[in-house]
Amino acid sequence: MAKIQARILKGFRDYLPEDMLARRAMLASVEAVFRKFGFAPLDTPALEYTDVLLGKYGEEGEKLLYRFEDNGGRDVALRYDLTVPLARVVAMNGNLPMPFKRYHIAPVWRAEKPGRGRFREFSQCDADIIGAPGSAAEVDILSVGMAILDALDVKEFTIHVNHRGVFDGLLDGLELYEFEKRAHVVRTIDKLDKIGREKVLHLLSEEVGLDSTGLEIISGFLDIPSGDIDAAESFFASMPKASEAIAALKATFNLAEQAGIASRLKANFAVARGLDYYTGLIYETTLNALPDIGSVMSGGRYDGITDMFGAQAHPAVGISLGVDRLFAALKELGTLQLASTPTQVLVAVFNEDHLSDSFQIAQKLRDAGVHAEVFLGASYRLKKQFRYADRMGIPYIAIQGPDERDEGIVTLRCLKDGQEKKLSVDQIANEI
Amino acid sequence: MAKIQARILKGFRDYLPEDMLARRAMLASVEAVFRKFGFAPLDTPALEYTDVLLGKYGEEGEKLLYRFEDNGGRDVALRYDLTVPLARVVAMNGNLPMPFKRYHIAPVWRAEKPGRGRFREFSQCDADIIGAPGSAAEVDILSVGMAILDALDVKEFTIHVNHRGVFDGLLDGLELYEFEKRAHVVRTIDKLDKIGREKVLHLLSEEVGLDSTGLEIISGFLDIPSGDIDAAESFFASMPKASEAIAALKATFNLAEQAGIASRLKANFAVARGLDYYTGLIYETTLNALPDIGSVMSGGRYDGITDMFGAQAHPAVGISLGVDRLFAALKELGTLQLASTPTQVLVAVFNEDHLSDSFQIAQKLRDAGVHAEVFLGASYRLKKQFRYADRMGIPYIAIQGPDERDEGIVTLRCLKDGQEKKLSVDQIANEI
Repeated sequence: MAKIQARILKGFRDYLPEDMLARRAMLASVEAVFRKFGFAPLDTPALEYTDVLLGKYGEEGEKLLYRFEDNGGRDVALRYDLTVPLARVVAMNGNLPMPFKRYHIAPVWRAEKPGRGRFREFSQCDADIIGAPGSAAEVDILSVGMAILDALDVKEFTIHVNHRGVFDGLLDGLELYEFEKRAHVVRTIDKLDKIGREKVLHLLSEEVGLDSTGLEIISGFLDIPSGDIDAAESFFASMPKASEAIAALKATFNLAEQAGIASRLKANFAVARGLDYYTGLIYETTLNALPDIGSVMSGGRYDGITDMFGAQAHPAVGISLGVDRLFAALKELGTLQLASTPTQVLVAVFNEDHLSDSFQIAQKLRDAGVHAEVFLGASYRLKKQFRYADRMGIPYIAIQGPDERDEGIVTLRCLKDGQEKKLSVDQIANEI
Repeated sequence: MAKIQARILKGFRDYLPEDMLARRAMLASVEAVFRKFGFAPLDTPALEYTDVLLGKYGEEGEKLLYRFEDNGGRDVALRYDLTVPLARVVAMNGNLPMPFKRYHIAPVWRAEKPGRGRFREFSQCDADIIGAPGSAAEVDILSVGMAILDALDVKEFTIHVNHRGVFDGLLDGLELYEFEKRAHVVRTIDKLDKIGREKVLHLLSEEVGLDSTGLEIISGFLDIPSGDIDAAESFFASMPKASEAIAALKATFNLAEQAGIASRLKANFAVARGLDYYTGLIYETTLNALPDIGSVMSGGRYDGITDMFGAQAHPAVGISLGVDRLFAALKELGTLQLASTPTQVLVAVFNEDHLSDSFQIAQKLRDAGVHAEVFLGASYRLKKQFRYADRMGIPYIAIQGPDERDEGIVTLRCLKDGQEKKLSVDQIANEI
């Protein structure tokens, strides 16, 4: 048989044990917080009918879909996100108790050009509340986000909060109604942090063709001090849609304040997050120690998500964690425990005749709560067994020779400091 | 915009919270046991190059693959199992410490005709040991399997153990060397439990054309009492390949005996598990209370799995849990806790003015370890909030009216028995 070349598709990744153990630990913390807030897990298929997936994204999505005809001639595609499948589930299950709080941690696929930190398969980690309008659900979503970052021990972070209606009102104030132009203005202002105020105004004049009145309005908008909702209220007094948005934002901030969770929230009127998806609250989150990494947690309100299926309209608000970014951040902050194995004790095998003793010792250790494995390699040379423990990063090795067997004890060696103790199996669990 | 019909592909499933919570609980138990034995998690992409996946399965696999050309013209397919991706990872990472013990719980896709209990997307749950020859690794794999079924509390079960060489030797003894005929004999004997001994012999005569000598050998084979390795040893004395297999099987049983884990193992020479994949030990597991459900856990030795990639040959032994079957069995045995939400306490909202108090109560409950959610519906009518708790199966509801607020207490109502207690928030955590 001709040999096949073992290779992996570009933009796809294997997660070897070291990464996987740390990622799973991170996601287990996240999941525990979701559950503490009453979010329940949901899972949906990787494959869906293409028209179901395209409902939300249209042509932009089409290019990015892994789309094909299945053996039955159906037009199918791999899911692009976890939001459309959620909308489909809600539309198909009219009897779900509302509000419906679900989380979903699963891979999605996008046929994008892979690059630094951009993959064709990556995990999304979302929680959403369907069927809850108003500030309460928004404060709940922001609270769960804060509790997650606290659980992950990232210390200082800032959630930058805005309302989609602020930009909408501003664009109406500019009398810009063409979708492409509106999008262009938003994209340009979104670059403020990177390119600076002067360059933003320059691009708006050159590329969008804003006149001096328009540039003045934008200039005034950029002058609103970050975090100052009252200043925004005055600035937008003559723009009704934006005023409404500021009022809604204020209500959410007030409730957060009273609930005692406002200290990490900051109103930031430049937060954009795309034009055609969100309908109210929008937010992004930066880690104060690693601002350059970008937003690690974002979301907002997107009422009417089930509209595309002609189903009953429901309000919706959600949160999405950037799993890869957050993982990279935790690595950089040094808050992740890295190991290649869950094993705490390698039970060495003195020789073939001692093999069943080693199995019994390992089983007793497990019964006492210790993660233990018997050395399963082909040769029982002790040097080989030590080398294995060392390469795997197993912290302890337990060895029982014939004399120790007679005495009913085991030598426990700590690989870090080389210290050895003679202990009974019961004592080992306490020692670790 | 034309409305899109919300629908799901045939053979695919949504896991709504009730199923998902129970499945996740089951898999969390399984995962904890894998880790206790030193198996580390691994994950690989859903999509692979088609030739990589087809290496093992050839034409049979081809029909069952979700295969397509991606936007870059690559011939790709969704993974069909978790074993080929494992072999690829081992082939691509020559420096993995050996033995390499990994587990992998993930979906796979097969374009099969969907039917009762047969889906096109389903989870596999595998653990394998690469790089460990001999009985020790086999006893380790059988031990982890037993520990899993014990952790899931399925009580009585039997692991039916055989060696692939037994059938090979038997077929050599029959002087049948044609692959199709060999497979036909094995498939026919595999039906023994269903169709009975007479029918098996009849089919072997009619369909395979076995002569009276052949039928006599088979007849003698079927006469070996299940579990009697010594009887098998005598029967196969003149068939060298089968004798070797029985000797290997005996070694594994002896070690299991000495290690104290043999009581749930039973030698069963009729266990077949396909012809061209396993190279040594093979086994299946039945639940004594639910024999009709079929095998819930199976596997065996398949040395040389990386051969197809021309990589260094490694011995391999593995275990695979039938997730759907096991889940169905646990449901039937009543050992699963079913709930639609992780929430233990619904913190009701007395009225709009009390909203931030409800948030604070919920947060205190969570800090004390309780899973608590604030009611987020649009209307604060208490009747609606009770109805929500009831439909979600939330066991407790906490309500604080104005008087209680002044006193700093909360009314905790148990929805099951309707009992109410007036408690401080701190006391609630103890009460639950």
